Amino acid sequence: MLNLLNDHRTVRKYTLEKISPDLLNQLLESACRASNTGNMQAYSVVVTTDEVLKKQLAPAHFNQPMVVQAPAILTFCADFNRFSTWCEQRQAEPGYDNFQSFISAAIDAIIVAQTFCIAAESVGLGICYLGTTTYNAQEIIKALKLPKLVIPVTAITVGYPEVLPEQTDRLPLNGLIHHEVYKDYDANEIDRIYAEKESSDFYNQFVKENNKDTLAQVFTDIRYSKKNNEFFSDKFLEALKEQGFLQ
Amino acid sequence: MLNLLNDHRTVRKYTLEKISPDLLNQLLESACRASNTGNMQAYSVVVTTDEVLKKQLAPAHFNQPMVVQAPAILTFCADFNRFSTWCEQRQAEPGYDNFQSFISAAIDAIIVAQTFCIAAESVGLGICYLGTTTYNAQEIIKALKLPKLVIPVTAITVGYPEVLPEQTDRLPLNGLIHHEVYKDYDANEIDRIYAEKESSDFYNQFVKENNKDTLAQVFTDIRYSKKNNEFFSDKFLEALKEQGFLQ
Repeated sequence: MLNLLNDHRTVRKYTLEKISPDLLNQLLESACRASNTGNMQAYSVVVTTDEVLKKQLAPAHFNQPMVVQAPAILTFCADFNRFSTWCEQRQAEPGYDNFQSFISAAIDAIIVAQTFCIAAESVGLGICYLGTTTYNAQEIIKALKLPKLVIPVTAITVGYPEVLPEQTDRLPLNGLIHHEVYKDYDANEIDRIYAEKESSDFYNQFVKENNKDTLAQVFTDIRYSKKNNEFFSDKFLEALKEQGFLQ
Repeated sequence: MLNLLNDHRTVRKYTLEKISPDLLNQLLESACRASNTGNMQAYSVVVTTDEVLKKQLAPAHFNQPMVVQAPAILTFCADFNRFSTWCEQRQAEPGYDNFQSFISAAIDAIIVAQTFCIAAESVGLGICYLGTTTYNAQEIIKALKLPKLVIPVTAITVGYPEVLPEQTDRLPLNGLIHHEVYKDYDANEIDRIYAEKESSDFYNQFVKENNKDTLAQVFTDIRYSKKNNEFFSDKFLEALKEQGFLQ
């Protein structure tokens, strides 16, 4: 079991083989057994396999090729629509149109997503998370016809791997874990934690190709810039407002 | 593997047996192999086992007894402090003091949390998520000495189960999954999805004990009221602001 987790890698290229509906249901059943807030199950999963719909979703994910190529895209949504509709039908006044309800529903949705991913990998499927989901939530809401109190928080592509890519590096565990309380990082500690990453040929090549002096600059100037982060912050807050989570 | 996921239950009572540091490290190593945004690993895990510190954390979790009784509490934090410090040390200007960066770091932290939980269950440990984490983030920040750009998003207690409780119910899968696009719920569909829950002796007893007419009212009037949700929304937004994620 730990071997399965240790062997995780992101898979972006899939064979043409479809995932059988029975298998998909079985994996989703297992995923939905995961913990959730107050057993309200404030999430929904939209499974998209139709070629036309995948093409409609693709621009929201910056046309990354796996979105059209993968046999299925699963969009995991924070969903207080179903629960609130039930409350209204049962003489109860729902109060889930707020930020805390979004947060707890989002946590539920992500827990289901990751449990699904592990289940999928255990039967030989490969997955890729789409971080673009919260960048372009509005476009996804439109494509998937999500009503008020439903907002996408993450999505994955899933299919049978065409090739198993190399594993990517991770920071040393003791750079990520704090014992008892948080111990802030001093300059030496930062150097130590990032030393392996910064000495790798792969990343050094990456820095050169991007005409930068340091690996950190590739992140701040190109991949995850302040300007983009602020633009997508406003956009996601606007989506939360439109979906009714900031009343 | 699917059997393990299908067998999940929340464990709130633990034996006195400690978790060995080696085993805990092994489980955390496996958890940190999980997917994350841009391989920035924008999360930290604080492992608290000290009796005095557990007692300091307990009020933030409404003094739920398992917080003091469990051998370990793991607090999973969205963390752009480490990454931003690294950027500053490498002539790069970090731009992660915004809402989108919080969201992507929070997703990373929750994915690690759930992967840890599955790893822990695979070796016979039991876990309980603490939904109180985003209610009382400020109190946790203080107890765990979290600096700016670090905020707790979820926490778990973990230990060897004293008893394995009954599994809780789940809504029928076809009430949670949507094919191709979202299909909104009509009154009949809501009745169908909640029928099993509403006919159970356990929940009917729960409704009676709380002097309510419907199960939904137990949620809206007692467990997750609009008033509380709004109070904790303001509080968590304030914590996000204080930690520097809403610049």
